[in-house]
Amino acid sequence: MDPDAVAKAFVEHYYSTFDGNRPGLVSLYQEGSMLTFEGQKIQGSQNIVAKLTSLPFNQCKHNITTVDCQPSGPAGGMLVFVSGNLQLAGEQHALKFSQMFHLISNQGTYYVFNDIFRLNYA
Amino acid sequence: MDPDAVAKAFVEHYYSTFDGNRPGLVSLYQEGSMLTFEGQKIQGSQNIVAKLTSLPFNQCKHNITTVDCQPSGPAGGMLVFVSGNLQLAGEQHALKFSQMFHLISNQGTYYVFNDIFRLNYA
Repeated sequence: MDPDAVAKAFVEHYYSTFDGNRPGLVSLYQEGSMLTFEGQKIQGSQNIVAKLTSLPFNQCKHNITTVDCQPSGPAGGMLVFVSGNLQLAGEQHALKFSQMFHLISNQGTYYVFNDIFRLNYA
Repeated sequence: MDPDAVAKAFVEHYYSTFDGNRPGLVSLYQEGSMLTFEGQKIQGSQNIVAKLTSLPFNQCKHNITTVDCQPSGPAGGMLVFVSGNLQLAGEQHALKFSQMFHLISNQGTYYVFNDIFRLNYA
């Protein structure tokens, strides 16, 4: 399967879940998964989703600007690098962000092993 | 060794080499290494450095804002995620960028297996 198509499908799925059903992100991570969110390190699917669902905003919309991907090595992993902006409900200006994911293949599907998120302040 | 310290040392070495002796970056990549530069895919240390040395500016200075790192898996690889700005000689405004590296351990040293670079347009 075309890696760019896999990356694009993952990105669409990830952010539509984030924006529409944030607790549903739990199925995309596993126990060894790592998130670094604005410098804060969190490990494990439950802890990661607890962090993401406790962010100080409810409604949001991610708009994706770029998606790049590369194979991470012979084991079939994939690196996905995203830039875009995040529109919060009631805020005039969107926040620019960059995020990277390392997807690991597991019985025909992928989960997020690494996730690093940063806002890009203007 | 502390992964954050390794990541910080790598980042300082990478950008000081980029800004001071760009052809010297060749030693940080290997034949299987991949660079995606503003969406353009390039493979192999020689091709990567040919791209980086042919960018349409000579003097530049990278200023780093954030460095995040995570282990990429049990094999000892490391993901390094950087944000910062790039000042070109003679330009009034710096360009914001984000970049990620996947470092692979090889006999006690690291090389860059994956490199993805994007400018973050304001």
